[in-house]
Amino acid sequence: MADVFARIAPHLGAQTLITDGGSTKGDVVAAARANLGDKLTRFVPAHPIAGAELSGPQAAVAELYAGKKVVLTPLPENAPEAVARVRQAWELCGAQVSELTPQQHDEVFAAVSHLPHLLSFALVHDIAQRDNREQLLSFAASGFRDFTRIAASSPEMWRDICMANREVLFDELGLYIQELESLHAALADADAEKLEEVFSEARKVRSAWTQQ
Amino acid sequence: MADVFARIAPHLGAQTLITDGGSTKGDVVAAARANLGDKLTRFVPAHPIAGAELSGPQAAVAELYAGKKVVLTPLPENAPEAVARVRQAWELCGAQVSELTPQQHDEVFAAVSHLPHLLSFALVHDIAQRDNREQLLSFAASGFRDFTRIAASSPEMWRDICMANREVLFDELGLYIQELESLHAALADADAEKLEEVFSEARKVRSAWTQQ
Repeated sequence: MADVFARIAPHLGAQTLITDGGSTKGDVVAAARANLGDKLTRFVPAHPIAGAELSGPQAAVAELYAGKKVVLTPLPENAPEAVARVRQAWELCGAQVSELTPQQHDEVFAAVSHLPHLLSFALVHDIAQRDNREQLLSFAASGFRDFTRIAASSPEMWRDICMANREVLFDELGLYIQELESLHAALADADAEKLEEVFSEARKVRSAWTQQ
Repeated sequence: MADVFARIAPHLGAQTLITDGGSTKGDVVAAARANLGDKLTRFVPAHPIAGAELSGPQAAVAELYAGKKVVLTPLPENAPEAVARVRQAWELCGAQVSELTPQQHDEVFAAVSHLPHLLSFALVHDIAQRDNREQLLSFAASGFRDFTRIAASSPEMWRDICMANREVLFDELGLYIQELESLHAALADADAEKLEEVFSEARKVRSAWTQQ
């Protein structure tokens, strides 16, 4: 992105609006700050929360953004009219627009998007290393299918997302490993009560979320 | 199960067939061996690989087993005619029947079913502990939805499955934690190549599995 910003900066008119659709915001904002000069006021970062494990032009869907969330992460330097314009463009696509700071954005998506992708890739990679992987996969069912759907996502895109947000994601993954260590200990101790407590809390929260 | 076997054993006729539909087999076989006496030849353990995150009688679906896999884990003591009969019953429900040893069964399903359930419960539990869980969940999208669908499963049933297969599951979870430690190190080292390698291998295997 730094290179793109540097190359377009000299050619931007005073009224030109700039936005993006990337999955991380801290890195994009830093690149814009370093390269856009006084055109920074015209750059309104955005992240549409829609898509699938498919990528490339042939995966295009006309109604992709209808009813979906788009997060804007406006900068203190932004002209209010620039933010309003970008918001309007997304609303015309049928999206529900909300705003976060770039830092809030990257923390939220590390937890609910980047981490699950990493975990899903990791499970399939783990199984792929086994001598009996064909046998294992032949018995995998719908739970495995849904859990690993996102492991069919673009490796290059997810490499870039993980690298762009690697500090926050490092912390998130650390917390999750602690959670697993605690379950590992519960299995070692045959602590059925602990397992049920974790599963019950998770089910309660997951079911409430679906019903929203 | 031990109690059920002990209570039914005295009332079983010489031709009575016994089978089950549990998600683990080692524990059920041990309970049968300890309690069925000479009726053990008539017990053919089975595991239908079908279901959903819903449970209870109101979740019943008439065509649930059509085209689904059922694993039998016959015992050396089984009368061949008893195994054939149980196989036939499942085939009449439209299921595809295969056979594994109880130990093979428990190893396979620890990897492709029990572990993913544990991981999905753990992610939702992890997020449920946060002060900003409502904000986090408000931005969760379809990747999170599919990854955590199985975290809406019955906590009691999954407590029992994890306990019944806890030795194998302990080993599986240990391997998975190692996999995550390796990705944690890759993030710390900004090792983009390592991340892409893991993601690419996972995508290749996951995509090939879907196309089978």
